[in-house]
Amino acid sequence: MSVTTATDHAETRSDRFERGLEVLTRIDGEAGRKVVDSLADISPELGHQVVAWAFGDIYDRPGLAPRDRQLVTLGMLTALGGCEPQLDVHINAALNVGLTCEEIVEALLHSAVYCGMPKALNATFVAKKVFSERGLLPGKK
Amino acid sequence: MSVTTATDHAETRSDRFERGLEVLTRIDGEAGRKVVDSLADISPELGHQVVAWAFGDIYDRPGLAPRDRQLVTLGMLTALGGCEPQLDVHINAALNVGLTCEEIVEALLHSAVYCGMPKALNATFVAKKVFSERGLLPGKK
Amino acid sequence: MSVTTATDHAETRSDRFERGLEVLTRIDGEAGRKVVDSLADISPELGHQVVAWAFGDIYDRPGLAPRDRQLVTLGMLTALGGCEPQLDVHINAALNVGLTCEEIVEALLHSAVYCGMPKALNATFVAKKVFSERGLLPGKK
Amino acid sequence: MSVTTATDHAETRSDRFERGLEVLTRIDGEAGRKVVDSLADISPELGHQVVAWAFGDIYDRPGLAPRDRQLVTLGMLTALGGCEPQLDVHINAALNVGLTCEEIVEALLHSAVYCGMPKALNATFVAKKVFSERGLLPGKK
Amino acid sequence: MSVTTATDHAETRSDRFERGLEVLTRIDGEAGRKVVDSLADISPELGHQVVAWAFGDIYDRPGLAPRDRQLVTLGMLTALGGCEPQLDVHINAALNVGLTCEEIVEALLHSAVYCGMPKALNATFVAKKVFSERGLLPGKK
Amino acid sequence: MSVTTATDHAETRSDRFERGLEVLTRIDGEAGRKVVDSLADISPELGHQVVAWAFGDIYDRPGLAPRDRQLVTLGMLTALGGCEPQLDVHINAALNVGLTCEEIVEALLHSAVYCGMPKALNATFVAKKVFSERGLLPGKK
Repeated sequence: MSVTTATDHAETRSDRFERGLEVLTRIDGEAGRKVVDSLADISPELGHQVVAWAFGDIYDRPGLAPRDRQLVTLGMLTALGGCEPQLDVHINAALNVGLTCEEIVEALLHSAVYCGMPKALNATFVAKKVFSERGLLPGKK
Repeated sequence: MSVTTATDHAETRSDRFERGLEVLTRIDGEAGRKVVDSLADISPELGHQVVAWAFGDIYDRPGLAPRDRQLVTLGMLTALGGCEPQLDVHINAALNVGLTCEEIVEALLHSAVYCGMPKALNATFVAKKVFSERGLLPGKK
Repeated sequence: MSVTTATDHAETRSDRFERGLEVLTRIDGEAGRKVVDSLADISPELGHQVVAWAFGDIYDRPGLAPRDRQLVTLGMLTALGGCEPQLDVHINAALNVGLTCEEIVEALLHSAVYCGMPKALNATFVAKKVFSERGLLPGKK
Repeated sequence: MSVTTATDHAETRSDRFERGLEVLTRIDGEAGRKVVDSLADISPELGHQVVAWAFGDIYDRPGLAPRDRQLVTLGMLTALGGCEPQLDVHINAALNVGLTCEEIVEALLHSAVYCGMPKALNATFVAKKVFSERGLLPGKK
Repeated sequence: MSVTTATDHAETRSDRFERGLEVLTRIDGEAGRKVVDSLADISPELGHQVVAWAFGDIYDRPGLAPRDRQLVTLGMLTALGGCEPQLDVHINAALNVGLTCEEIVEALLHSAVYCGMPKALNATFVAKKVFSERGLLPGKK
Repeated sequence: MSVTTATDHAETRSDRFERGLEVLTRIDGEAGRKVVDSLADISPELGHQVVAWAFGDIYDRPGLAPRDRQLVTLGMLTALGGCEPQLDVHINAALNVGLTCEEIVEALLHSAVYCGMPKALNATFVAKKVFSERGLLPGKK
């Protein structure tokens, strides 16, 4: 059992955090940082792991484009249920990495086939909130 | 409340089924047809709805590319849990519409962040089975 | 693979929508229409599918009485979790199609055996809200 | 906080078990007893609670007919996912208390709207197995 | 099939309720009683079962310490999703039976591995609320 | 936003893997290594993350004893559903870190209150398999 990679250089915990924070900020913008900040007084280690592991180690890997990762993520958060706060962050992230409003809405329509109407509706109403906050809702001129 | 589209022409139930069957066969190949065939003696109506609605009405819509739909679908099926038979069909479908083995494996690694390790592992072992059946597993020369 | 039914006549998209809207209004009353209306600016297609497919194609089939469909639906929404907005609509619908308050409360008690106490409690508190709004709560004279 | 009922007589643990066993046997037949028997060497207390509480205390309450309880139960087990062994027992139970094959298949078709196609398919294939074992599958003459 | 225990004495429904209420009050304090009280006008039987069965029959069994039961319960409520009200009650209960803030936060960090980041985050923010209400949050001097 | 710890020394990817492998082997024994080995040809990176992150970074933290982590884990895996392979590994792990058969069975009985009977049954039958394989089942002399 061996795992070899080209990048087996030594990193400190802070290095990994800094690397992840750059990714988090690029993808999620202020919303992602706010979640991590709000963990500072209750579980700084969970905040560290979101940044250093989820964004630094996993999200930033080259094997799947950020846009594609967000499509997978929208599918997962819709299917899990009860993850409206994370859908809010990740619908924003989806827009940040280049998915269009139309693609996001279509992905959530597609989710009705696999997750059922209730979860598709819950996710779509989060998209409505996010698009509205960003001035992207066609009906809200 | 009104919904207008360019394609508001009359279709019979059979028309919609035929349209969906063409999509299903294109995306899922024989595996999809086998699922529908195996419903014939227990719930032909469920088979009809999978074909006519899921594939004919939803999947074939132009707003999201088949490759992108499969990324969302892999995320959903991994998150739902207990959907290994559907993951089998849809990992095959993902390959059929142009996702690479590397992208699929990376999407399932990405799912560990949002769904946890157990569901990511379960989905990855379905990918191992599918890739092996298609002769795509690097270790199985 | 063939599916034949007695009703294989041609319908337009609008025909199916109108047919479904009649069912939706009969079952869910204003609450159902409000959900569809609130989708108009974000995902009119999801609104169309809720109406034309969920209510027009599936709900209205003769093989299971509306009252029985609502019992299945209450079970599903309780088990899924995080579907309180849909439970609100469907507890109202359950009353509209003839289930009594006592039967609904008993169904949710029954759900504790299969879904556990937390989900049974969450669903029961939605019933409390709905009954209260309709003046049906015994303790709210 | 007080709860009063007409039946506040003293019962031993064995009384409650015997009462539940009569209900379990009436509803689930041998399949239910087999589940309880298979718990005897690992968790007799879980077996006791299934019998005495789930069937003796809850299932047997008069507020909802057995047929209606099974409709709620089919909805819950389909929605939960991964409960195929329990669906097997409860599709048998549904037939035992008077639901027809057609109503069960229709309930599972209805579940596709709320739980999505994968869970509806998984439950329908359990129904196919059960109907086949009982010689009720139309295509299996 | 027989289940024998040392305590097979006769109890009335009220006896079981009283026994459970003592346990509920000891573990959950006022929060638990409030939940049961709020069920009085909608489903007194569900309130009875929470008290008499969940706390009287199961929680009070000697085979697992209250502290250990709360660890299992925190894991379950985090994994189920959408059970924030119950997490609130049970994070309070965890503190009441001797788990420290640090152990609770660590258990929720641990949950990220198995349930994914979104559910770990949702549960951790409930802990933040509970600790804050009890004056236990380090950052809230 | 800063996270400081006493152990901010530099580690390579291999260092973290080796550290995690020691923990994984101590807790899960051969079963854990087998899971990682079986990932080698499909997703070595997922294997790396299970070892280096889940076991090296999270499991080994001092804030919660291994025995307590396993209680949380049993609760989560039971609640998630469809995670029988992981329950197998972690019921073995629970025994390895000092939980008794009686405590494990009691924890799974306790889970019936929060997850419902079906998931409690599924998990208990995995325990039966594991105990039987280890010669720990009382009825299997």
